[in-house]
This record gives sequence, structure tokens and C-alpha cells, in this order.
Amino acid sequence: MSTVQIQVIPDGSITSTPGFEAAGVACGLKAGGALDLALAYSPQPCVGAAVFTTNAFRAAPVLYDEKLLGRNRLNLHGVVINSGCANACTGAQGLRDAAATAAAAASHLGIDPSGFMVMSTGVIGMPLPMDKVLAGVVEAAAQRSHSLDAGHSAARAIMTTDTRPKEVALRVTTSDGEFTIAGMAKGAGMIHPNMATMLCLVTTDVRVEPAPAQKALRHAVDGSLNMVTVDGDTSTNDTALLLANGLASMRPIHSLRSTAYHAFLAGLTQTLTMLAKAIVRDGEGATRFVEITVSGARTPIEAKQAAMSVARSLLVKTAIYGQNANWGRIICAVGYSGVPVDPGSVRVWLGDLELFRRGEPYEVDEARARELLARPEVPIHIDLGQGDSRGTVWTCDLSHRYVDINAHYRT
Amino acid sequence: MSTVQIQVIPDGSITSTPGFEAAGVACGLKAGGALDLALAYSPQPCVGAAVFTTNAFRAAPVLYDEKLLGRNRLNLHGVVINSGCANACTGAQGLRDAAATAAAAASHLGIDPSGFMVMSTGVIGMPLPMDKVLAGVVEAAAQRSHSLDAGHSAARAIMTTDTRPKEVALRVTTSDGEFTIAGMAKGAGMIHPNMATMLCLVTTDVRVEPAPAQKALRHAVDGSLNMVTVDGDTSTNDTALLLANGLASMRPIHSLRSTAYHAFLAGLTQTLTMLAKAIVRDGEGATRFVEITVSGARTPIEAKQAAMSVARSLLVKTAIYGQNANWGRIICAVGYSGVPVDPGSVRVWLGDLELFRRGEPYEVDEARARELLARPEVPIHIDLGQGDSRGTVWTCDLSHRYVDINAHYRT
Repeated sequence: MSTVQIQVIPDGSITSTPGFEAAGVACGLKAGGALDLALAYSPQPCVGAAVFTTNAFRAAPVLYDEKLLGRNRLNLHGVVINSGCANACTGAQGLRDAAATAAAAASHLGIDPSGFMVMSTGVIGMPLPMDKVLAGVVEAAAQRSHSLDAGHSAARAIMTTDTRPKEVALRVTTSDGEFTIAGMAKGAGMIHPNMATMLCLVTTDVRVEPAPAQKALRHAVDGSLNMVTVDGDTSTNDTALLLANGLASMRPIHSLRSTAYHAFLAGLTQTLTMLAKAIVRDGEGATRFVEITVSGARTPIEAKQAAMSVARSLLVKTAIYGQNANWGRIICAVGYSGVPVDPGSVRVWLGDLELFRRGEPYEVDEARARELLARPEVPIHIDLGQGDSRGTVWTCDLSHRYVDINAHYRT
Repeated sequence: MSTVQIQVIPDGSITSTPGFEAAGVACGLKAGGALDLALAYSPQPCVGAAVFTTNAFRAAPVLYDEKLLGRNRLNLHGVVINSGCANACTGAQGLRDAAATAAAAASHLGIDPSGFMVMSTGVIGMPLPMDKVLAGVVEAAAQRSHSLDAGHSAARAIMTTDTRPKEVALRVTTSDGEFTIAGMAKGAGMIHPNMATMLCLVTTDVRVEPAPAQKALRHAVDGSLNMVTVDGDTSTNDTALLLANGLASMRPIHSLRSTAYHAFLAGLTQTLTMLAKAIVRDGEGATRFVEITVSGARTPIEAKQAAMSVARSLLVKTAIYGQNANWGRIICAVGYSGVPVDPGSVRVWLGDLELFRRGEPYEVDEARARELLARPEVPIHIDLGQGDSRGTVWTCDLSHRYVDINAHYRT
């Protein structure tokens, strides 16, 4: 086995990947002149891969992209992403609007319409204001650039209730060559796995064929974006899209058994994990980042199921917000997770403090627990004592601000 | 078929049932001298039936009662219920404390210890302060009475974050005789089905054998207490207990096919439904009572699954709190419920306003929607358009006050 080196590129954006251009413009979908339409474009045709929402009500852009990728996974050039309007529950008109947006971008860039995809995020059930969107596409195509700032603008343009953009870029070096993986994501509420869980675009210059590209994306999403929850709500628009333009100096990846595939998978997983954690850190109203690890499970699926039950519990999330060392609520959420557990073999830690062992309270040091809960990152570890599998999920606390945001924001 | 008449007894309590005595006393488990220990007692031996939590971490009183009912379903006399401490996750000591509490009550009342049960609610993981509990049992046994006020005191003594007691009493008249069904319940948070979902005690003078009593309780719980959710959390202590002393002038119920059984089941379902709705109305921080009906489902289970997905959605609950007519979130929650649905056949109503029809917005009258959401009761109806089954669940909105309560209260 050759070694793989992965380095974070400081201040990276989707344009850190050679051959990718981007833009972020304001076309009036959001109030106050905020950036609301992003373009990502590669003149070189890309291999595409995507993972979409499992919600039965799939938004028009999801339906459009899925159909397009069914016909074309080799000659993709880019994507238009708008915030402010999800183009979801918009019927036949929504599909026509998605197609018209892609066609407008393709036309301005002189490529076939089948080379462009679309993503949308924002209010459900409102038609896309196409005059604004089409004007935005023209402006974005004109402004596009290789600069890092152009990538940063694109990352800002896809935000909704996000308070900050989420971007990452990595340089992966292997004995078989070097390549870049860069990504941006949006998402702060309506965040729960079972798909891509938000909008996420990854650009890379890796040389990869469609089948291993899709396999790597699916695998990486399952271990990263699908391991986070903010509020348990799974949106109609979630999409993770990978565009690989193959400009890197390397032999193409055909096989899942090659070193280069594993390096690509490792880099992609790290990219998506960093974006997933960034989404949770920026969870609506979040004041704490919570990492929940379940070990000693019979299977990885049961480990995730138990961890996710704790991560979704409103009582656990509000207790963490209140810096209330209420470990009973953690135990309770494990107990109703549906994973068969023997209370007598379960152990629970908050940081290094073992709160519960074999059916009874253990080192219950309230002062120390409060101290641990006052920190910005809260690690919780539950050992089920029944096997060797483990899983880690990430969530945030539930604050007054979450209620503020969602009582009034129209998603 | 003979007719069955069911009448609500005004100002009823568990002592509305002939032959039942009760008390509610303050023994120091709650701060400030609030009532915190309830006793219910029937000198006449009772048939007992119970439904317990499905949580894997079952509290000591749940384990104790279940074992006791396994041996004795015919000679039960009463129950001691304390609030302020759940006696959950308390190991072997918790079981000894549950047994000692039951034994103390039985001893003071001159009956066999196997005739008494226990229930607890409150903080998880703290041992029962037995000096206080035993003193409370002595005082409650001394103060017990047939008066309605004694029943009302018992209903107050089992409250935790509840803002008001939940009590109901019904008079059931059939051609085969007359009987009373009365109940009290507590619960405001950590409320989600898969069991009794809270503490609930039903007293009745119906003459019923153990098998039909258990069958009726299970059936009635599934259609009432298991149809509510406040926060999706399923507690370690949930118990619904039925005590039937058989003092009514009627032939005993042996068969599930008898008119009397059906009258009993109807009365019991009404009792538990009224208590279930009272629990949701008093949901932690609730400002709205929300009734969600799903019709046109393929099975009752799928109807409940879709309705519960909407009822659990934080985004739906916060939107209702904000009087925000965000029907997209309702659609979204149906979409991720796991019930296979065809968006083109789904319809959604808020009250009489049809918001969504066949994949697209329909009568979206924002002003009228806001008016409907300003009312204390919010009816939501979703027709899946794929079958004849239906189900109704009850929930409340999610407010700032819920976060206040749970950031600081130790359950």
C-alpha cells in the first residue's frame, strides 16, 4: 500500500480545484440585496455523481437532476444554485422552470443544455420568480471567475438561515498522482439524514469514471452528511453533487480496489465530514456542538440508531442548552431507540466523566459535569456493552433562538 | 344491539367510582410544600390491568408492578404514586424501595403486600428519599377518603411540570347495567406513544375478568394515549393502570363479544381520550392544541405513521407557534414519514382551507390561514388518496416556554 497524504488548503473554496469557475450574484430572490444565485462551471466536461433526498415530495430540481444524470454522467459542465425559493411542491411549472434555468446557463456558456444541473433551497410551495432567476443566470455567467473570491461568493449565495458559508478544500497526494477536492454546503435547519441532508457541491479534478465516482460519493455521504441532525426534519431538496473534471495528472480511477480510489474516498469523506460538522456548528440557534459516539453495539446500524435517538431527543438538546447535566435523558433516549439493550451492561460518559454504569449512577460529579457542559463542544459516549461496532453522529443543542428562527422563517 | 349511554360526571375524580378512596399529601419530595404523594385504595379487591412503557430502561416501579401483576390480577387494592423522583436507573436499591413503599401502604391498610402497586414520576437516576416517602404513605393512608376533593388532591399530587390536574369521570349506562369509569393522568413533557406515555390511573366499578380488562385497556390505550406526542420522548416510567372493583350492579364481563364489554371499551376509550387530549393541551409550553388527521391511507398504521411524522416535526410545531401558515413543512413531514405516497394524489387542509392539491398549492389564502392559526385549536387534515384508512393524533406547538422548562428542569 502506498501512503496517502491529505492537506487542508487554507481559505479554500470550490474554485481551489483547477479548471472550475464560479460566481455568486444577487438577483432579488432574497430581500436586501443579499447574494442568492450561485454558478459553478467547468469548461472541461465533468463526470457527475449525486445523492438526493429520500423525501417522497422531491423538489423540481431534484427530479430534474436525477433524470439528467440518468442520461448523462460524463459530459457535465456545471450547476446553477439559487436560495430564497426551493421550487418544491410546484408541480409541472416547477419542472419547466428548472429546465429553463439550466438551459439559460448552458446557452450563455455555449454548451448543450444536458450539461447543466440546478439546485434550489428556500421556501417550499412558491414558484421560482423566473425573471429574476434568468437575469441572475446571465449576470453570474458574465461574472464567473477562477478566483477564490468567486468561490466564496458562490458559497454565500446558497445560504438561507446559515450565519456563515461552509467551504473546504483539500489537496490529496498519493504515489499515483495528486488531486484537489473542494466543497461548499448550506444548511442550518431542516437537517436530518437519509440523504444528502442539505445542498452540497463538490468540485474535484480527480480522474474518475462514473461508477466509482457514484460509489465513493454514496459511501462518503453515509459516513458524514448522513451522520448529522439539527432538528430531525428531512428536506424536499437535499442534494450532494460531485463534479470531477479529470484535469489532475494521474491515471484514471476505474477500480474500487485501486490505491487512487481509496485516496479519493478518504479525501471525499474528509471534505464532507468537515462540511457536515460545519453545518451542525451553524445549526439554527446552536450554542453547543455535540458529538455522540455509541460503541459496543452489535452492528454499525444499531450504533447509529442509538446515537441518533439521543441526538434527536428534544429533552437532551434542551438540557445541553441549559448546561443541565441531565444524563437520565440520555439513558432514556437510548432506551426508546428501538435497539435492544440490557440496562445492566450500558455505560455513559460525558467527556471523561463516567455518569452511568450497569444500571446505576456512577461518578455523578455535578460541578464537573456543569464545567464540561459549559464548553462549546460536548462529547457524549455510550457503550452498549454488546458488541464491537461503533458510530458517531453530530448534533447541536436546542435553544430559544431555534424557536425564534422557525416560528417566523418560511421554509 | 342494545344502546349504550355515556355521560360525563361534572367535577369528577377517581373517587367518583363507588368504593374507591384517595388522598394526596405533601411529603417533601417537591420543594415548597406542594402535594407529591397520592394514594388510591379500594377495600374491595380489584381486578387489575396495566400497560407499561416500551423504553428498554424501565423504572423500578414499572418492573415491580409488572412482576406483581404477573402473579396477581384479581386481588389488588390500590397504588401509591409519587412525583418528584422517578425511581428510574436506580438499580437494585430502586426495586427494594418500590417494594418497601407498596409494603408500607399494604401494612397500614391491613392487606397483603401483593395487593399494592407503585408508580413514580420525576427526576431520573436519583434514589427515592424513603424517609419522606414512608412518612407520606402513613399520612396518605390516614387522610384517605371517598370525597371528590380527596380524588382531586391525588390528581394534583402526581403532577410534575403539569400546570393543572387531568381528571375525568364517566357514567356508562347499558341495558345490562350501569357502571362508572374515572381516571386521572399526569404528563406534560417526555410525551410520545409506544405505551401508556405518562402516568394514568383508571378506577372503575365495572365487573370484569382480568383477560377482558387487559384487552380493553390495551385497545383503549392504543386509540388514545398512544395517539399523542408532545416532544417525541418516550419515558422510562409510563404506566396506565386500571383497577376494577366490581361493585357495579351488572353481570360480570367474561366475553369480548358481550354488549357490556363494548360499553366498557367505549367508556374506557372515551376516558383515556379525554385524558390524552388534556395532556396535550397542557403540553410543556403549549399555546395551541393541534389535531392532525390523515385519511385515504392504505392501513390505519400508515395513517398514524404519516400523522405522527407531522406531529413530531419541530418545523411544523414552531410554525404553528409563530402562526405561520407554512404548509410546505406539513407536506415535507408527510414526505419523510416513511409511508410511500404519490405527491400527485395528496391533499392538505388547514381547517376548511384546502392548501395543497395534487402536487401544487391550491387555495393559498394567507390571511384566512393566519386567522385559523390564531385560534387555540388547529385542525390539520391530510388525505393521502390511496385507501380508506384514517387516523388522528394530537399534539401541541413548540414554544420558547418549552425550551425554558426543559433547559432547567431535571427529569
